[in-house]
Amino acid sequence: MSIQSNRGTGSVLSTNRIEAFSDGVFAVAITVLVLNLQVPQIIPAQVSRELLPKLFELWPKLLIYVLSFVIVGIYWVAHHNTFHYIKQSDRNLLWLNILLLLCIVFIPFPTALLGQYPEQQVSVIIYASTLVITGLVLQLLWWYATSEYRLVERDIDPQLVQRAARRNLAAPLIYLLAIGISFLSVQISLVFFALVPVYYIFPGRIDRYWTPRPTHSVEEAKISADGDTSLSGEEASPLSVTAPEE
Amino acid sequence: MSIQSNRGTGSVLSTNRIEAFSDGVFAVAITVLVLNLQVPQIIPAQVSRELLPKLFELWPKLLIYVLSFVIVGIYWVAHHNTFHYIKQSDRNLLWLNILLLLCIVFIPFPTALLGQYPEQQVSVIIYASTLVITGLVLQLLWWYATSEYRLVERDIDPQLVQRAARRNLAAPLIYLLAIGISFLSVQISLVFFALVPVYYIFPGRIDRYWTPRPTHSVEEAKISADGDTSLSGEEASPLSVTAPEE
Amino acid sequence: MSIQSNRGTGSVLSTNRIEAFSDGVFAVAITVLVLNLQVPQIIPAQVSRELLPKLFELWPKLLIYVLSFVIVGIYWVAHHNTFHYIKQSDRNLLWLNILLLLCIVFIPFPTALLGQYPEQQVSVIIYASTLVITGLVLQLLWWYATSEYRLVERDIDPQLVQRAARRNLAAPLIYLLAIGISFLSVQISLVFFALVPVYYIFPGRIDRYWTPRPTHSVEEAKISADGDTSLSGEEASPLSVTAPEE
Amino acid sequence: MSIQSNRGTGSVLSTNRIEAFSDGVFAVAITVLVLNLQVPQIIPAQVSRELLPKLFELWPKLLIYVLSFVIVGIYWVAHHNTFHYIKQSDRNLLWLNILLLLCIVFIPFPTALLGQYPEQQVSVIIYASTLVITGLVLQLLWWYATSEYRLVERDIDPQLVQRAARRNLAAPLIYLLAIGISFLSVQISLVFFALVPVYYIFPGRIDRYWTPRPTHSVEEAKISADGDTSLSGEEASPLSVTAPEE
Repeated sequence: MSIQSNRGTGSVLSTNRIEAFSDGVFAVAITVLVLNLQVPQIIPAQVSRELLPKLFELWPKLLIYVLSFVIVGIYWVAHHNTFHYIKQSDRNLLWLNILLLLCIVFIPFPTALLGQYPEQQVSVIIYASTLVITGLVLQLLWWYATSEYRLVERDIDPQLVQRAARRNLAAPLIYLLAIGISFLSVQISLVFFALVPVYYIFPGRIDRYWTPRPTHSVEEAKISADGDTSLSGEEASPLSVTAPEE
Repeated sequence: MSIQSNRGTGSVLSTNRIEAFSDGVFAVAITVLVLNLQVPQIIPAQVSRELLPKLFELWPKLLIYVLSFVIVGIYWVAHHNTFHYIKQSDRNLLWLNILLLLCIVFIPFPTALLGQYPEQQVSVIIYASTLVITGLVLQLLWWYATSEYRLVERDIDPQLVQRAARRNLAAPLIYLLAIGISFLSVQISLVFFALVPVYYIFPGRIDRYWTPRPTHSVEEAKISADGDTSLSGEEASPLSVTAPEE
Repeated sequence: MSIQSNRGTGSVLSTNRIEAFSDGVFAVAITVLVLNLQVPQIIPAQVSRELLPKLFELWPKLLIYVLSFVIVGIYWVAHHNTFHYIKQSDRNLLWLNILLLLCIVFIPFPTALLGQYPEQQVSVIIYASTLVITGLVLQLLWWYATSEYRLVERDIDPQLVQRAARRNLAAPLIYLLAIGISFLSVQISLVFFALVPVYYIFPGRIDRYWTPRPTHSVEEAKISADGDTSLSGEEASPLSVTAPEE
Repeated sequence: MSIQSNRGTGSVLSTNRIEAFSDGVFAVAITVLVLNLQVPQIIPAQVSRELLPKLFELWPKLLIYVLSFVIVGIYWVAHHNTFHYIKQSDRNLLWLNILLLLCIVFIPFPTALLGQYPEQQVSVIIYASTLVITGLVLQLLWWYATSEYRLVERDIDPQLVQRAARRNLAAPLIYLLAIGISFLSVQISLVFFALVPVYYIFPGRIDRYWTPRPTHSVEEAKISADGDTSLSGEEASPLSVTAPEE
């Protein structure tokens, strides 16, 4: 009986298992990104003269590697924040999650494409489109889970649900803008790509507006560990990590 | 003593560990699929003219990537649903599971083959055969675990066991049909490949027939979390996720 | 305090964490094996004529893939059986384990080599040597953990320790024999490679000799879940799974 | 409520989940290293004559593989020892950890570069720089977590914090030295690379100085499992495993 009960609340596939599998997929996808960085092959006689310039040619690939690593990192954080509030799974959630993972696992391809041909508009459009779709699937999953409290608890803060949705949709919006701008200048659209991580990594104004109350100190956090503080304002948005800050 | 007891019920290798290792293997196998999508290598002078048409040539590979991703996803779901009912492990189960993983890990190869040569009958036959064998191994594992209640609990619903078997065998049957049809038309046989995910992702008529009782609401599910509802009808079939639907 | 206590018995790195990391490494290593199976590249005009013969040429690679998959599977089983009895970790154990993983992760290379050049003696010797060293490292780890009850419980069955050692050393011995025979005939030495899985997968005579007592039924196993049955005879040998058989 | 409380102390992302994801990333990164070892491609007529010399040419790659494997292993150990003392997470810690993983996942590239061109100074500098940055990020993470007891418990031993910092900074210092020496001799700088593992794998004098008290026997460790011994001296340094030694 004990085995059954820790498998989840009556559903065959608990959210724990979905998260463990997703963690594995995220970990592999984020590591596969480095495979795009290939050591330049140079004939022995010319190595000492050509190695350094050939390595410098890898700069765009290195930048795209870092960018994609951070983006997959953001989605991993978003995935866990989302599943923090999802208490049950059903068939549709499971397949929405697999659809999300399909997008995540696909990211190494547009990353390699943009790293290889960073000046081509088609690279920018495919890269941005992948992230638009990934963001929309994440929001679809969040909408599915929260609408009519389908898979979340009934006492979830409605503001939290909305703010998370806004954050989920911010990235696709920026990437859509980048696609539009790419018709004018591919270079400027690449700058937009770098803005998304900045938006998600650093706590934004919106976050601060919604969290006027003092943050926990280490001691308070320990005392309230079994309490109900985890659904408070700042921690709400799936695309941000909002643990107590000093 | 506490360490021992949470290792499982007297067997060296608990089903928990088998599942954790299998999860890792599934996660890597599903991510390796994307490595088939290689960025086209074009000489600099012709990039702007040739990149787009070269990328369009990747469509069949992209479709096969999505198809195989979903198929591995289906088997991951099936694997976990199967192990939901398996409460014990033994030497044979362990090796049947490793045999199943061997099939799963192999899937990227026929996927790459079919992506490269989608119009060749031999690609279709190898792809379909892999999935026929995978499905049969899954059913063999299920049959081994359930026959004479070998590794499952004695109060398991016999209808559940049979319905799961039917579902496990449906995919191999469709793939066998696809192999037969490939002798007439390779194109039509490819359509059959797309049917399997549809069959497993969407809840079928059979499922509904066997689950006339009202589904749980979120509240009920929470109340019955430690109860005995998890062996109920709908949740039975290893190849389908059958958590409560709204 | 609760976090600390479930981290292990006073050591910084509990065996749980070692096992989780090792599981991940095993899962990736076993999946990387399939990357050796590359789709043959054929110019379009000759595909329909050359694809089938080119695929048949992959047979040796396929066989080696299956062989190596099963061998890594055997070592995964052995790893877990070994750590079932190891209750503590120390610095040396940790590095012996990393040394073992280094061997496991290396296996894809000799696998690719033997798959590419199966008729070459040097391939056979490198493949066999890798597995000799892997087996010796496993036994070194087992000897380190068990000698003077260093990291195991004092009531461990001494016969269990010895029988596990014999099993650990059987594989290196067979592979050493295969190396010797390769000087006479490479083909015969390859047959020896296939014998090792047979030895470890199927329960041997020795196992049966040591387990005359009746096996548990499902009900008994549940009753004795928190009992002391897990150190019984059959379950002892690290290279075999010895859960109750019907 | 029970699900929430085991997710961590009031923060959305518990350190457990960070560790699980990091474990996955480490496992993949350490396995990807072997992909640098490629089987030499030789035309059939010359295999028996050229295979052995071609394999001998792989020696530098093999050495670098072992070296990098051990280094990633050291950082995995360091990562876990660090997170042993970190009891809470916040947004900054999360991103410092992702930055650390970005460095870890990058290691296969300089490994491949140094394996391909071991005699080139630029390879040495890129390899060493990667590890300098990785070490500094690890120390930054440790400093962030421990300064003003931000994410650790207030009763943490201050000497432990300092000694860990010294250990974290030792590796970057040695690698900086290796970079300096590479301007004189690339060969000697490579020797320095091999010194780092020796320093971290074997317990150093400093460790012994700080741990004059007798180590636990197996029995004592079991008794004190729920006690407070885990913050004792020897176990302090994040870059060393300091479980009881016999």
